[in-house]
Amino acid sequence: MTYFTEAASAETVNARMGPDTAPRLAEVMASLVRHLHAFAKDVQLTQGEWETAIAFLTRTGQICSGERQEFILLSDVLGFSMLVDAINNRRPAGATENTVFGPFHVADAPIRAMGANISLDGKGESCLFEGRVLGIDGAPIEGATVDVWSDNADGFYDVQQPGIQPKWNNRGRFITGADGRYSFRGIRPVSYPIPDDGPVGQMLAQLGRHPYRPAHMHYLVTAPGFQKLVTHTFVGGDTYLTSDAVFGVKDSLVAPYEPGAPGDTLWRSPFDFVLVRE
Amino acid sequence: MTYFTEAASAETVNARMGPDTAPRLAEVMASLVRHLHAFAKDVQLTQGEWETAIAFLTRTGQICSGERQEFILLSDVLGFSMLVDAINNRRPAGATENTVFGPFHVADAPIRAMGANISLDGKGESCLFEGRVLGIDGAPIEGATVDVWSDNADGFYDVQQPGIQPKWNNRGRFITGADGRYSFRGIRPVSYPIPDDGPVGQMLAQLGRHPYRPAHMHYLVTAPGFQKLVTHTFVGGDTYLTSDAVFGVKDSLVAPYEPGAPGDTLWRSPFDFVLVRE
Repeated sequence: MTYFTEAASAETVNARMGPDTAPRLAEVMASLVRHLHAFAKDVQLTQGEWETAIAFLTRTGQICSGERQEFILLSDVLGFSMLVDAINNRRPAGATENTVFGPFHVADAPIRAMGANISLDGKGESCLFEGRVLGIDGAPIEGATVDVWSDNADGFYDVQQPGIQPKWNNRGRFITGADGRYSFRGIRPVSYPIPDDGPVGQMLAQLGRHPYRPAHMHYLVTAPGFQKLVTHTFVGGDTYLTSDAVFGVKDSLVAPYEPGAPGDTLWRSPFDFVLVRE
Repeated sequence: MTYFTEAASAETVNARMGPDTAPRLAEVMASLVRHLHAFAKDVQLTQGEWETAIAFLTRTGQICSGERQEFILLSDVLGFSMLVDAINNRRPAGATENTVFGPFHVADAPIRAMGANISLDGKGESCLFEGRVLGIDGAPIEGATVDVWSDNADGFYDVQQPGIQPKWNNRGRFITGADGRYSFRGIRPVSYPIPDDGPVGQMLAQLGRHPYRPAHMHYLVTAPGFQKLVTHTFVGGDTYLTSDAVFGVKDSLVAPYEPGAPGDTLWRSPFDFVLVRE
């Protein structure tokens, strides 16, 4: 079939790909076309809805800038980012699960002494974060880098408030010793909304969804010979734990927040990270 | 299931929609999420491919302007525009088929006398276009407006070359009389590439596809009491007839181009339009 027909629409489009198309690109595009066409057929998409979609995608692209990535946000709120993360980070039982990286990581954060305080603005409820970096076999991993970042007590990352927050506020890297232990002081993170003043925020409102993420501490844990772990720990009991706007929460990543030691921090949040060998 | 799992990813996302979501929006979004997630699972989309897709969508949005709509172009080359057109314009046998509207229509073109020449720049191979506007029952339709537009012999519409082409070059509206007949003189249209200097053009190149549309004359035929007809007639024998970059060709829309009458036009292209009652 050379000419377009409604019945064979996807097949007609896919048959047009040239013989020298990279095999993986051909595979991905053919599946995308099949699913996009099946979607339009399933819902019998109207011309007006198509126009709405074109306008939405256009606004989404146009609001993107060096500081804002609305298409990633769109992928996030549709659970697509978490799905891709899941597909690419399947791990054996016992290993710490991945979750989305998020847009607020900054490379080369200061390497700090174990136990140091990463909260530089003096705001928020103090918390001691501690635990071990282990292999699946339970053996401590020496020389693991625990790279951490969180929002401040107002719900903003330092990079969102340059000139207001101290540089590297609520960020740091910690290198484990032979015991695999890490510890640092910071604040109990707070929940915050994803940017909701653009097309994605408007979409969430139309879907009756709030834009909040439950409070979480970000971790990027790396060690020679082990797979990279990108994850968060979530604050147990957070209001938005079961309705994370980007679907990042996994049961195994909800961390306890216990009262801290007298004279030290208000809270203590223990969590062990279990890495998988490469 | 409240927390995200790879297995129930789409269901988890869709369960998040609020109870007051407009029913049609909920239906469309739920299907979109199901198909997007199924796509990622089918191809086991990698993190790198996801990043490529985000960057592609962003570039596509950023190149859009008042004069350029790259997302419509993307929809066109994926056959999605034609599919939506087909879904929304199913017609009984014997009625003229729809095809895509395209971006180059201009409202309120001059109403010209039957037989007038719409080619104002003196370029190209002259052609007489003529035929009837009929109902399914074969009865001529009086008072039908036949709004026509085409590129010039260089492959550009007048609106693409302001100051180079005369205003309203290769455009006009013709109103049928009691016999339902229309006729006008213009040029035999030429094939031309869709804008291929952006992300969509790069994608076509990677898929081994050319950006050309086969030569065609655009028609918007309206008449009181009848459904609007948006279509083209294609130049039979065109090189790109079986590989239209936007999949607009239908067998029934390929028109004959015969030698014109001696002393009149070089070509003659007869075509009847059959409209369906509202």
